[in-house]
Amino acid sequence: MIGVAADRTPDALRACAAKGVPVAIAYASGFAEIGPQGAALQTELAEICRETGIRLLGPNCLGLIAARDAVTVTFSSSLDEGDSLASGPVGFVSQSGAFGTSIMSRLRDAGIGVSAYVNTGNEADLDAAEILTALTLDDDVSVLLAYLEGVRDGDRFVRMARRAAEVGKPLVVVKVGRSAAGARAVSSHTGSLAGEDAVFDSVAGQFGVLRVDGVEPMLDLAQLLATGRRMRGPNLAVLSISGGAGVLTTDAAEANGLVVAPWDETWQARMADVIPPFGSPVNPIDVTASLISEPDLLGRALDLALEHPGTDAIVVVLTNVERGSNAVVEALREAADRTAKPLVVVWIGGSGRPAQTLTAAGVPTYRDPQRAVAALAALSGYHDRPPLPATPEFDDIDPAAARAVIDKAHAAGRVQLDELESAQVLAAYGIPMAAALPADTPAGAAEAAARLGFPVAVKILSAAVGHKSELGGVRLSLTDAPAVENATREVLEAAADAGVDDARVLVQRMAAAGREMALGAKNDPTFGPVVLAGSGGVLIELIEDRSLALARLTPGRPSG
Amino acid sequence: MIGVAADRTPDALRACAAKGVPVAIAYASGFAEIGPQGAALQTELAEICRETGIRLLGPNCLGLIAARDAVTVTFSSSLDEGDSLASGPVGFVSQSGAFGTSIMSRLRDAGIGVSAYVNTGNEADLDAAEILTALTLDDDVSVLLAYLEGVRDGDRFVRMARRAAEVGKPLVVVKVGRSAAGARAVSSHTGSLAGEDAVFDSVAGQFGVLRVDGVEPMLDLAQLLATGRRMRGPNLAVLSISGGAGVLTTDAAEANGLVVAPWDETWQARMADVIPPFGSPVNPIDVTASLISEPDLLGRALDLALEHPGTDAIVVVLTNVERGSNAVVEALREAADRTAKPLVVVWIGGSGRPAQTLTAAGVPTYRDPQRAVAALAALSGYHDRPPLPATPEFDDIDPAAARAVIDKAHAAGRVQLDELESAQVLAAYGIPMAAALPADTPAGAAEAAARLGFPVAVKILSAAVGHKSELGGVRLSLTDAPAVENATREVLEAAADAGVDDARVLVQRMAAAGREMALGAKNDPTFGPVVLAGSGGVLIELIEDRSLALARLTPGRPSG
Repeated sequence: MIGVAADRTPDALRACAAKGVPVAIAYASGFAEIGPQGAALQTELAEICRETGIRLLGPNCLGLIAARDAVTVTFSSSLDEGDSLASGPVGFVSQSGAFGTSIMSRLRDAGIGVSAYVNTGNEADLDAAEILTALTLDDDVSVLLAYLEGVRDGDRFVRMARRAAEVGKPLVVVKVGRSAAGARAVSSHTGSLAGEDAVFDSVAGQFGVLRVDGVEPMLDLAQLLATGRRMRGPNLAVLSISGGAGVLTTDAAEANGLVVAPWDETWQARMADVIPPFGSPVNPIDVTASLISEPDLLGRALDLALEHPGTDAIVVVLTNVERGSNAVVEALREAADRTAKPLVVVWIGGSGRPAQTLTAAGVPTYRDPQRAVAALAALSGYHDRPPLPATPEFDDIDPAAARAVIDKAHAAGRVQLDELESAQVLAAYGIPMAAALPADTPAGAAEAAARLGFPVAVKILSAAVGHKSELGGVRLSLTDAPAVENATREVLEAAADAGVDDARVLVQRMAAAGREMALGAKNDPTFGPVVLAGSGGVLIELIEDRSLALARLTPGRPSG
Repeated sequence: MIGVAADRTPDALRACAAKGVPVAIAYASGFAEIGPQGAALQTELAEICRETGIRLLGPNCLGLIAARDAVTVTFSSSLDEGDSLASGPVGFVSQSGAFGTSIMSRLRDAGIGVSAYVNTGNEADLDAAEILTALTLDDDVSVLLAYLEGVRDGDRFVRMARRAAEVGKPLVVVKVGRSAAGARAVSSHTGSLAGEDAVFDSVAGQFGVLRVDGVEPMLDLAQLLATGRRMRGPNLAVLSISGGAGVLTTDAAEANGLVVAPWDETWQARMADVIPPFGSPVNPIDVTASLISEPDLLGRALDLALEHPGTDAIVVVLTNVERGSNAVVEALREAADRTAKPLVVVWIGGSGRPAQTLTAAGVPTYRDPQRAVAALAALSGYHDRPPLPATPEFDDIDPAAARAVIDKAHAAGRVQLDELESAQVLAAYGIPMAAALPADTPAGAAEAAARLGFPVAVKILSAAVGHKSELGGVRLSLTDAPAVENATREVLEAAADAGVDDARVLVQRMAAAGREMALGAKNDPTFGPVVLAGSGGVLIELIEDRSLALARLTPGRPSG
């Protein structure tokens, strides 16, 4: 390590490249994060990398820690505490130094081992997706964590996520900028585009990325994923020391989409033989506080719950248990060893020391039912995720016809298409539309309707009008010429009242009854073309039943 | 305290009453929680209380702790740790012993002082609402917490909640049984009815009760409420040591309905004079890690944020700060002392020890942004709650006319009214309905339509059919007799296809265009009459835009 200030960094990087150094780390700040002058310096670094082939981590970063190799190339304060770093199944990449370091200290407190921690900083060259890709190839890493403020290259991120899903290494991401205020702040903080959050969400859903909203949800999930256990369905057996705590856990589980189904009479009878008469064998199972004085009872109840064919995971709920906690910890540890199913503990009260012992023994342990079931629900969703998107087929399309419509609108000085033009563009791409004709007058509309065949709809036709219904600009199911003429007059008047003077109407054949759908498309600056499908109609904003997905339709551009 | 087993408790209670003891505590288990035999014993206790006037806490409870009087009438394990109990502004009532004790230990760990803790157990006599009512009169208690599995008496609970709201003592409740599976488990656990959860939710909303879903949300909110500070609006100033952590906090705040608005240029310029040039003065404000080496900088930034007219509360976000943490803690404590506004700290990384110091000094401190802003959002909502429901006026109604319709249906062996009968009952209570007539045949329907005036709707009329549209049993906007006859034929055929042989049709005048509303009413076993209002139509289950409220319309029954 050599101390180099920002303005001397390009020379130092060139010198390293000349000496054949393959990878360098630039710790110095004073680049894009301080404004235009620093940004120019950062561009110079990127250019040196491109020209010479040297790879660069940073600048404005804290470096990396590879615990298993005892390599610590950082000035991070995460080692301030003087504890040695525990190696383990986690690989963690953070774009923020300070934030990443604080997550590192929380991982250590939670007893979660980290093989590699990399802070990518300003990402002049190497970005988070590249580091994560490398970690998917690392045999010591089975769980990927990332703290992201932006995605440099959408395609690269998608390829990385696809690979992580294919090799079965779950990736948990905290990405800031979900709110409008947050996205604005990201832009000013990093100088990078936050991108539309819904698009990132959609990418996460399509490629099995587990997005969480905070530090604790990330830790909670990492603890569970680090066990490497699979959850084959959403069904929990809940065993509780207290009836109420078991019910609270059940409420939380069901709110998270998990299932706590009552056992049938045969299984209830078997459990009733194990637990005291004032317990409950139904599921949630109230094992009662007798489990403290008789840890053997807990072991037998756990074995029965594991044997039950409907158990995909077990949650054990404890309240204050201090006296006798060693035996309880031992019984839980042994039961966890006897099964491949996830077994987690919620230890609500007490000093927290027995819970730490249990965590250290590899049994995920939480202090609140909500947090335990949120982690289990994410695990269940991960193992039950839909298949990765296939590389799509290329369809015959007629871009020239679409181009002509758009060019004509541009020539008229417009950047927004009206409904008729939009329909023409869609038709050029093979999407069927109900037959329609424009008209300027009531008489013209009646004539158009006669050509199309009744019943028809009459709608305002104007690129200036977005929500036609709210303006009174739509008349449906018109069955004869007078009704069409009348509707056209009313619709044009409504448009004039709303200040739209040049409106025409679109006369359109009524489609057969069916579901209304909304379809949309846009070009995301980070991830490229995105399509939207959802329920449509006037309530579209209220219902919000919609889904985004990456569209990879151009043959020249391979899918993720 | 005298050791008494369950079956000796009635005699002991009678003996106490005879000696003029005003209040007794029964710790013993072996009552309603073990089945019918125990339930009989519990009923006997309740009768002794009614007859003699003695009040009873329990049975099956752990007693109470009144920390400020150093009274500890419990065998609870919450004192196992050997620490002395800190007195403070919280009064806590729990129906569950084990769960209550574990919350007590977490309150102690979080540094939240508790003046009184009462475990009400089976509530043969005194219930949670009565104890909470008593705590609203206790000058040492300013924050009420409750863990509930059921509500014994809805009216009493509502009166208590009204009083708590009137005297400005916030009540935070964890109530189990939110999910169907949870409600089922509560019934089997306590033998008491869980009640419909949506009704409890509505009561909470109407009377300012802060319902939370878990132990940690309760602790997080209690910590904030214990400061007694008011939040006059939803606007936060977010000051962060790290840009990313500030953005994550902003995302969480906005997701919880709080606002992090950017500062205008004048205020930005003032903040820019305080923070380093590589920080951000916009809000969220990136104070940068310089605050560690210059705690004075933090103090000045805090003062500016407090002075800003748009600041209703301040959130300070720290990551790993260990070296220099004493000065940071001191700067935060002093700033909190200089203002009456809520000031909370999110201290994400590090050892957690400085955060504990800060908590002990009365500055609410959290380890995760989500949890801090969730507590602030609840506080903001509490201070911005709608006024309490007024005692409603009594309206003229004609119950006899309604009774006649219902009696006639009963006489015909039915317990469900059809649409026409329902309309007649509503009309008896002064609710206007669109004019309607029943018909058995297409011709009869056409005649009815002529009498009502076109356009009309034709609907299946049968007490056996709930969702008419799904059956194809509704035809709208029929404008002439042939259309009505045709529709009637189709609707009756659809009914026959669905196995409804005795269906008639209801011919109803079309109402003018407007919003579809759903209105409903039911008798809740715990809280009495409840009314529902919401958006209606075929999408009612999808949209779920509805609201419940207690209806207190009978003059003999005073409102909450």
